[in-house]
Amino acid sequence: MKLLLDSVTKDLKPWIEAFKIELGDENVITYDQVSDPDEIATAVVWNHRPELFRELKNIKLIASLGAGVDHILSDESIPSDARISRIISPILSEPMSNYCIGAVLYYKKQFDKYAADKLLKNWDQEFEPERDLKVGILGFGELGSDLGVKLKLLGFEVHGLSRTRKRVDEVITYDESQMDTFLSEINVLICMLPATKATKGILSKSLFDKMKMGSFLINVARGHHQIDQDIIEALDSQRLSGAFLDVFPQEPLPLDNALWTHPKVFITPHIAVVTKMEAAVPQIVANHRAIMSGGSLTGLVDRNKGY
Amino acid sequence: MKLLLDSVTKDLKPWIEAFKIELGDENVITYDQVSDPDEIATAVVWNHRPELFRELKNIKLIASLGAGVDHILSDESIPSDARISRIISPILSEPMSNYCIGAVLYYKKQFDKYAADKLLKNWDQEFEPERDLKVGILGFGELGSDLGVKLKLLGFEVHGLSRTRKRVDEVITYDESQMDTFLSEINVLICMLPATKATKGILSKSLFDKMKMGSFLINVARGHHQIDQDIIEALDSQRLSGAFLDVFPQEPLPLDNALWTHPKVFITPHIAVVTKMEAAVPQIVANHRAIMSGGSLTGLVDRNKGY
Repeated sequence: MKLLLDSVTKDLKPWIEAFKIELGDENVITYDQVSDPDEIATAVVWNHRPELFRELKNIKLIASLGAGVDHILSDESIPSDARISRIISPILSEPMSNYCIGAVLYYKKQFDKYAADKLLKNWDQEFEPERDLKVGILGFGELGSDLGVKLKLLGFEVHGLSRTRKRVDEVITYDESQMDTFLSEINVLICMLPATKATKGILSKSLFDKMKMGSFLINVARGHHQIDQDIIEALDSQRLSGAFLDVFPQEPLPLDNALWTHPKVFITPHIAVVTKMEAAVPQIVANHRAIMSGGSLTGLVDRNKGY
Repeated sequence: MKLLLDSVTKDLKPWIEAFKIELGDENVITYDQVSDPDEIATAVVWNHRPELFRELKNIKLIASLGAGVDHILSDESIPSDARISRIISPILSEPMSNYCIGAVLYYKKQFDKYAADKLLKNWDQEFEPERDLKVGILGFGELGSDLGVKLKLLGFEVHGLSRTRKRVDEVITYDESQMDTFLSEINVLICMLPATKATKGILSKSLFDKMKMGSFLINVARGHHQIDQDIIEALDSQRLSGAFLDVFPQEPLPLDNALWTHPKVFITPHIAVVTKMEAAVPQIVANHRAIMSGGSLTGLVDRNKGY
């Protein structure tokens, strides 16, 4: 049984080579090499072509090349009995945590202010140069827990909200019914939610209005969650004091989007985590083999939950 | 016996209040309140007036308000038998480590590149958006060890050099005779040295030339260590790919200094650590009492070493 790779946005060449080393040349193919669709057990995808799963009706496993599966679940043609997996690995959580810690410290240490001061040659020493932060992680799952533990070690007060409440040492945790309390306690919000129907557009005026004045927003999840215009209005009303954004509803971010020129916005081009082959390939290969042998799989996704 | 506070650069009012709460109003004085110099056991100083120690010949303890004592040792009139102390506290090491981690992640995650890209509305996604870093801590003492352990937890390879070699789990350590090897192994240098005669101007062309091309420099110690013109030349020759500087030989940084306008330089106005009263006051009060009662002191400085 073969493994197929497909993506309309990613350069698959290095991935194909890596899978061939594990599974043999003849067992790794791309869309244009399919002769018998029923030979294919596993489809490894990232933004796959729309017709793919109308043609692969007997697929057993659909493996995401990253931590998110919204690009799979949004396709209504995926077979109802195919299993879906995502990457769970410290090789993903480490860059994600480091991005978020970098963004939090950028704000805590007022690097935003000093970058602006440099342009004016303004040497402005204050008695209290550190902002006093309480960090909230919205979507306190695998990645969120890794981040929360590290922020604690650096001395931060950390709050984490997930659908069902997690227990993590010294992190103040909440379930989804406690959203309003969670939002009222923090002044930095890090969005790490999965992209599901329930979370679409959640980073909006009604959410920001429940946070303290002058809060800071970090979004490393999906543009799906975020309403750009509401962020700009919250910045201009000082509900938000700044935003550090890696993702956008439309990517690349259009040239006429006002986030580009807003002085309180830091933009990175969806690079917080780029899935590394050494994280993804072994896990997907093991799942591919388990599908054929009847073994157990890792990183399986619950279609109802969406993650 | 009384405690005197003196500084020509710091606002001492909140400090005086804090010491009075511990020692009583009548035991805490400033320079203009001295009637009998022999009543004063302890001088708490930060950039004190030049004449101070010519008048306090019987002082028992000179306590720095920070981690550095160069501002004390550079005064040749300090009595030869006075003991000298500096602040050692997690309340100092936490902000110092957080500043350095913020600077390292700023570089690792290419926030410098993305800040520049934002001005051009340039959405530039790369396959490998993270720089591969090996971090060297020059001056691997109390503060350096705290930073080294935290950087390890975030996944960094860490090297530490101190006069005598330290043993810290999973950090690659060196003594001062191994400087050239240390410099050749790393591509990020964090200067945390004490300001002594031996370290004056150490951040110079001859040191940079021993590092890999494209290395990154962070200085959070003293401007004393740094030759601004050599940094600029190393940036322009691409020996250094960037510099993140909190300290300068002349502070405030003069308006005509080329560091202000250099695109590869990040400037903060000597704010990496601002000594917090809750760190300094209890330690100095305990030392002041120990001086009078004959107890043991913490944070004592070896005048020969200079730290």
